[in-house]
Amino acid sequence: MAHIALPEGLPGITGGFAFRPETAKPMRELAHILLFEPNSLTSGERELIATYVSYLNDCYFCQTSHGAAAAAHLGDEEIVKRVKADFQHADISDKLKTLLVIAGKVQKGGKHVTSDDVQQARNLGATDLEIHDTVLIAAAFCMYNRYVDGLGTWQQQDESMYAVMGKHLAAEGYRRPSMSTAEVA
Amino acid sequence: MAHIALPEGLPGITGGFAFRPETAKPMRELAHILLFEPNSLTSGERELIATYVSYLNDCYFCQTSHGAAAAAHLGDEEIVKRVKADFQHADISDKLKTLLVIAGKVQKGGKHVTSDDVQQARNLGATDLEIHDTVLIAAAFCMYNRYVDGLGTWQQQDESMYAVMGKHLAAEGYRRPSMSTAEVA
Repeated sequence: MAHIALPEGLPGITGGFAFRPETAKPMRELAHILLFEPNSLTSGERELIATYVSYLNDCYFCQTSHGAAAAAHLGDEEIVKRVKADFQHADISDKLKTLLVIAGKVQKGGKHVTSDDVQQARNLGATDLEIHDTVLIAAAFCMYNRYVDGLGTWQQQDESMYAVMGKHLAAEGYRRPSMSTAEVA
Repeated sequence: MAHIALPEGLPGITGGFAFRPETAKPMRELAHILLFEPNSLTSGERELIATYVSYLNDCYFCQTSHGAAAAAHLGDEEIVKRVKADFQHADISDKLKTLLVIAGKVQKGGKHVTSDDVQQARNLGATDLEIHDTVLIAAAFCMYNRYVDGLGTWQQQDESMYAVMGKHLAAEGYRRPSMSTAEVA
C-alpha cells in the first residue's frame, strides 16, 4: 500500500507522476536531458550511472528499470549486474569507472567528492561537462529514488515487465509518459 | 575552487545553472512549483521544509538561501533558526511538525518513512497532496544539495547577500534566473 492514494496499477515513479502531473513534467524533462539526449557519454553509460546510484540507494524500481534501459542500450544484461556488484572489474571504460567513483561519493553526500576524484576522471579524458552530468545524474537519482520509496509506491516484482519498460525507455526516452502511464491516461 | 570550470562570481547553484542552462530549466521549474506556486501549505512552510532538509544535508548555500526565503515569507528570522535546531519546540503548527518528521526520514532514505509517520500527519489534517509535496520537496533538496556541494561550488559567506537573495526568491520564485545570474547573463 502506498502512503497516499496513488492511482492503482502504476508501478514506481509512474504512480507519483500520475498523481501530480505538474511536478512530473520537469522531473521527466530532467531525466530526458540527462539520460537520453545526445551527449559524449552514451545513454548506456549514463543509465549505468543511474542504475548504480539507485542500487546504492536500495531502490528496487529505479535500479531495475534503469538497469533494463542500460541493458537495452548496451545489448548486455550481464554488464549491469557486474557494475552493481563490482564496477571496478566490469567490462566498462576506465573513464566510466572514475565517474562511477564520483557518483558513489555524491550518493553519500556532495562533500564526499574530492579534487583527487575529479582529477582521476580528468586524467582519463573526462570533460567538465561529463563530470557535471555525472554529479547531476547521481544527485537527481537521490531525488527519484527517495520519491519512489518515500511515497511507498507499488513496485511490480516481475522482471520481464522491466525488460519491456527498459526497451521502451531506451527507444523513446523520458519526456513522454511511459507506456504504463499511457495505458490508463 | 569548484571541481569544474564554473562561471566566476556566481554563488552555489547559480554557478551550475549558468554552466548547464538545459538542466537548469527543469530544476528551476520544479523548485518554482514546489516552493512558490499556490498550495495549501504556505510558501513559508514549504521553504522551512527545504531549509530543514538542506541543514540535515549540511549544505551551507541551500540552508542559508532557503532559510532567508522562509524568513522573508514569514517575516521572522528566529523561527528558521529554531526549526533547524529543534523544530518540535518551534512556533509552527503541529501539522508542519509531522511533515518535518516525514521530510527528515526522506533525507535519510525513502524507506525510512513509515505508515505511522504518514498517519500522524493525516491525523493533524495533512492532505495527500501535502504529504506528496513534503516527500518531493525533501527528495528534491537531496538533489539540489548534492549538486551544489558535489560540484564544489563557490559559496559566499556573507549572510547579508543571502537576505537579499531570500527576499528576491520570496517575491519572484524560481522560474527565472536570480538577480546574481541575471547580472552576468
